[in-house]
Amino acid sequence: MQNVRTDLAIEMHEMLMEAADELSGVTVRQEQKDNVHISRISIESLAAQRKMGKPIGHYITVEFQGVNIAEGEDYEALCRVVAKELSGLLSLKEKSNVLVVGLGNQNITPDALGPQVVSKLMVTRHLLEYIPDQIDEGIRPVCAISPGVLGTTGMETGEIVRGVTDKIRPEAVVVIDALAARSMDRISTTIQICDTGISPGAGVGNKRKALDKSTLGVPVIAIGVPTVIDAATITADTLKLAADTEKAKTDSKLYEALSDLDLDEQYEILKNALPDTLAGFMVTPKEVDLLIERVSKVVANGINLALHKNITFSDIDAYIS
Amino acid sequence: MQNVRTDLAIEMHEMLMEAADELSGVTVRQEQKDNVHISRISIESLAAQRKMGKPIGHYITVEFQGVNIAEGEDYEALCRVVAKELSGLLSLKEKSNVLVVGLGNQNITPDALGPQVVSKLMVTRHLLEYIPDQIDEGIRPVCAISPGVLGTTGMETGEIVRGVTDKIRPEAVVVIDALAARSMDRISTTIQICDTGISPGAGVGNKRKALDKSTLGVPVIAIGVPTVIDAATITADTLKLAADTEKAKTDSKLYEALSDLDLDEQYEILKNALPDTLAGFMVTPKEVDLLIERVSKVVANGINLALHKNITFSDIDAYIS
Amino acid sequence: MQNVRTDLAIEMHEMLMEAADELSGVTVRQEQKDNVHISRISIESLAAQRKMGKPIGHYITVEFQGVNIAEGEDYEALCRVVAKELSGLLSLKEKSNVLVVGLGNQNITPDALGPQVVSKLMVTRHLLEYIPDQIDEGIRPVCAISPGVLGTTGMETGEIVRGVTDKIRPEAVVVIDALAARSMDRISTTIQICDTGISPGAGVGNKRKALDKSTLGVPVIAIGVPTVIDAATITADTLKLAADTEKAKTDSKLYEALSDLDLDEQYEILKNALPDTLAGFMVTPKEVDLLIERVSKVVANGINLALHKNITFSDIDAYIS
Amino acid sequence: MQNVRTDLAIEMHEMLMEAADELSGVTVRQEQKDNVHISRISIESLAAQRKMGKPIGHYITVEFQGVNIAEGEDYEALCRVVAKELSGLLSLKEKSNVLVVGLGNQNITPDALGPQVVSKLMVTRHLLEYIPDQIDEGIRPVCAISPGVLGTTGMETGEIVRGVTDKIRPEAVVVIDALAARSMDRISTTIQICDTGISPGAGVGNKRKALDKSTLGVPVIAIGVPTVIDAATITADTLKLAADTEKAKTDSKLYEALSDLDLDEQYEILKNALPDTLAGFMVTPKEVDLLIERVSKVVANGINLALHKNITFSDIDAYIS
Repeated sequence: MQNVRTDLAIEMHEMLMEAADELSGVTVRQEQKDNVHISRISIESLAAQRKMGKPIGHYITVEFQGVNIAEGEDYEALCRVVAKELSGLLSLKEKSNVLVVGLGNQNITPDALGPQVVSKLMVTRHLLEYIPDQIDEGIRPVCAISPGVLGTTGMETGEIVRGVTDKIRPEAVVVIDALAARSMDRISTTIQICDTGISPGAGVGNKRKALDKSTLGVPVIAIGVPTVIDAATITADTLKLAADTEKAKTDSKLYEALSDLDLDEQYEILKNALPDTLAGFMVTPKEVDLLIERVSKVVANGINLALHKNITFSDIDAYIS
Repeated sequence: MQNVRTDLAIEMHEMLMEAADELSGVTVRQEQKDNVHISRISIESLAAQRKMGKPIGHYITVEFQGVNIAEGEDYEALCRVVAKELSGLLSLKEKSNVLVVGLGNQNITPDALGPQVVSKLMVTRHLLEYIPDQIDEGIRPVCAISPGVLGTTGMETGEIVRGVTDKIRPEAVVVIDALAARSMDRISTTIQICDTGISPGAGVGNKRKALDKSTLGVPVIAIGVPTVIDAATITADTLKLAADTEKAKTDSKLYEALSDLDLDEQYEILKNALPDTLAGFMVTPKEVDLLIERVSKVVANGINLALHKNITFSDIDAYIS
Repeated sequence: MQNVRTDLAIEMHEMLMEAADELSGVTVRQEQKDNVHISRISIESLAAQRKMGKPIGHYITVEFQGVNIAEGEDYEALCRVVAKELSGLLSLKEKSNVLVVGLGNQNITPDALGPQVVSKLMVTRHLLEYIPDQIDEGIRPVCAISPGVLGTTGMETGEIVRGVTDKIRPEAVVVIDALAARSMDRISTTIQICDTGISPGAGVGNKRKALDKSTLGVPVIAIGVPTVIDAATITADTLKLAADTEKAKTDSKLYEALSDLDLDEQYEILKNALPDTLAGFMVTPKEVDLLIERVSKVVANGINLALHKNITFSDIDAYIS
Repeated sequence: MQNVRTDLAIEMHEMLMEAADELSGVTVRQEQKDNVHISRISIESLAAQRKMGKPIGHYITVEFQGVNIAEGEDYEALCRVVAKELSGLLSLKEKSNVLVVGLGNQNITPDALGPQVVSKLMVTRHLLEYIPDQIDEGIRPVCAISPGVLGTTGMETGEIVRGVTDKIRPEAVVVIDALAARSMDRISTTIQICDTGISPGAGVGNKRKALDKSTLGVPVIAIGVPTVIDAATITADTLKLAADTEKAKTDSKLYEALSDLDLDEQYEILKNALPDTLAGFMVTPKEVDLLIERVSKVVANGINLALHKNITFSDIDAYIS
């Protein structure tokens, strides 16, 4: 099950629950606000951490499949939900400064979520330093960087971010990243916010690669949005649907064979069968440019509203110009 | 078999040959030039047209999997191959003018091949009209347009192109389009050149949509490069590979079940099982931007060399600037 | 005076009024709506056409220097002003179809206004044809094209647009273009709407180049926004300001010399002195990308509101997605 | 004279030599290699530093006005000239690692030179660490970053770069930046390489802003290319040309007045007269996108050839893909 490629705690939880009736050390609370669904998952034990493949901590999932996030009231309401959930995890003192880090390669659209969010932020640290008199009460010092990716910088992102935090000394770091999901209908319709940072390999504090409290020395909140799905996932899902369809037919050998295998076995067989060349491929919606443009605006404004007190959407628009 | 999604005559031919020993009405000639492979397929009868799902005519495939097309000698040699094959199909009189049409949506990278090729062409028609004295012998009047796609113009591409050809009266039209292939290793490593234009629905001259001799009144050469693969294809291919792997195991029910189905049946089952949402998804290499940038330069320079006599790569570079 | 480079009727009128007390054959009406200023200039005689360097017709200028056009109420109010003025000039019958043409080179930012507006339009002609049942009452058939520029297509824009209108037969054409202005503070803060189309050379119906009723056979409304200023203009303006400053000093020979020359003579001297190389240069604001992104949204939504009845901003956002 | 806006030592030297016959503490050596001109300026005293407005050190200018830098032999020869001059200033030990920093805002084309050069570099540090066996002899560990600009990060570039160098500990830093020049024909046809880094305010080691040996602790080479010219410069140059033209006329008061003022006085008057709004404007060639694309390739390959031993242009092309 550990092989199944999803960065979403909620999907991992669903898969585990399909296989077993209970999962100790994990609590889930659900909430519905109009057409936005919020799930709060806590991973509370090392055993649960191992099973979930994600470190002990809090994972909030905001789902908005039916919402038009282009503009207007629903869009603004959604930004406020993100802001509120982010504020809850951040719990910042007034005036403390925050560094936002946009991970990913801005030249590969589905990976460009982080840099796109950073480009839409109200960055203020320099203004509070150089022209403090012209800046409103409630504006917090915020700085931001898109450090690029290993392949184009030759440096681990963790090295760059630690170098910058050592100089800037923020009181919290917010990290933005594009995620992979199992389910196609989550692409750009789900935002995950967690307080465990980004840790390649569950719970291990790899000093070169991790962006978390153990490596940066301050709380690290990660915000992620699924933008791609895994090719093995698509194959497995299609096969499952094929089996369901075949089920109706009496005497379908395919259904019989497939129903003999549990999902894990199937995924394992398919994953191993996947051609190596597919490793460099991604499965992504055709309108991925537009989807990422829009969801990055929701994430950015969620952050803007969470970090700066009493600002309005007009303030943000006037500011970004 | 008609359902299998490939725009390449050569892949359709391979699939048909897998299923049967011979295919009457289709001839294939192969040629190897250093590390470039050229196949020339002729579809010669209506029966063959029906089977191949492509109109009667000539389909040349240039394959260059192992070639570094970034720059240098191999790149220039490949451009010359494309130029030579294109010249063979075009057979233009001296000084006759040519319109090049770049199909596709330039804002969706894998669909942007056409517009990208057009942006790299030596467009000369206006210069021969306004400053003929400054233009070298051997330069032919060439004009070019990227008409956009139905969803963003509200007009069939065929309507726009017919409108333009009625005014400009070119003696031939070259149409560039991104294609879908079955095989992942064909992405941006294969160029198909054919003399049948672009005809949605084999052989049918849909007056609104087709770009061929029957609708434009002049010879229409189509040049295509695979840039995406079909999600059902990936699933089918993976399943086939899975079956092969399972074969080794004695007593694999999955292998048994799969080997009972022929490829057509399998594809049919999978295609029907594919979630509707997947229709909007594409499978594409991560570095698709770079691949299309490069292959579009090969196609553009193949066209430049074919249309203008005695020009060099330096001439082209100086000209495009 | 004809040499002074401005595409705005209002600037040409101001310059003429500086030089003379009255200008027969031209009427001007002013209107202020909150912080938006509207001027309506009518050129009514051939003599006035000659003096103004623009054909007989109506020129509406919408000025919004102080308005935050990023988003929000002021932005929406401004879009409605543009829509209302455009509707006044268009006077369309219900259901008649309209072609919008975005002129300019999309790869040169200050010239990309037209293509950017087109990319933000509610294009509907194909939907009304293929899925009429799913389209709301009040939605008009609209199609759109960005035909590119002579240097990249080898064809006069007029040829392409006539080819398309001959096939599509719209009942009106709206043409969008970037303009040059004299005054720096007009850049992306002024929209000109006129019913004379685009005519290179005042009033002359050059069949190859003009986009107007005489060449397209239907009413042609042109919408323009200044995005660049002329280098000679900057020099002349700076010199004038220098003279004003010098004036204070007694015995300034520069002031004396400059005040001996009228503005026309000065401009003439400077224009002739300008190095040839400057011809390829443009003077443009540093944040020109953002300015054009925003003003193109105002123009696009002005058009969307004018063409489709009873639609809201949310409709547009939902539609464009 | 200090007001005259040029970042090129060679232009400052020319202006000083126009005003005086000699300039002590500055030596200049010229060299012509085919159609490339190389000037080597040394600033050797504090007095010269003050006059030149640039710190003591070596400034190499490579001029290539007549060269077609699109591709081909001349382009490759030019890259080799840049590589050789850069190597001379760097004098690196074998295997020592180098950090390249691309300054500037990648969203404002004329400012995007730095990020564009970085995107074309052979970045190798991670490969030598993770897959050393697959990397050729002669490849040096190179890493690279485009840190963004104060307005979008909220952090001084110097803070970010010092943070990164503290972690990475390179043995030399190469900084790339877009420059302003006085002369229009220098735009993208001149490369300046110097060993003084980037120091806002001549010679002053501003710890927050400077990128030089005093702030980074290792040698810092700066490479710059002019991409914009100053609006006051254009006005002054045009006025000078106007005066020259007027000179021919007997009795021209403008010539008389202008010839009474020396260039410094004229520039001062014009600079003061320039409208404040012009501060946000830039004067740049229309084809600036293409020019910067090309010159950034020359700079990037100059760096690639200087840093990695025995590599060819084909190696670079294969590598970048």
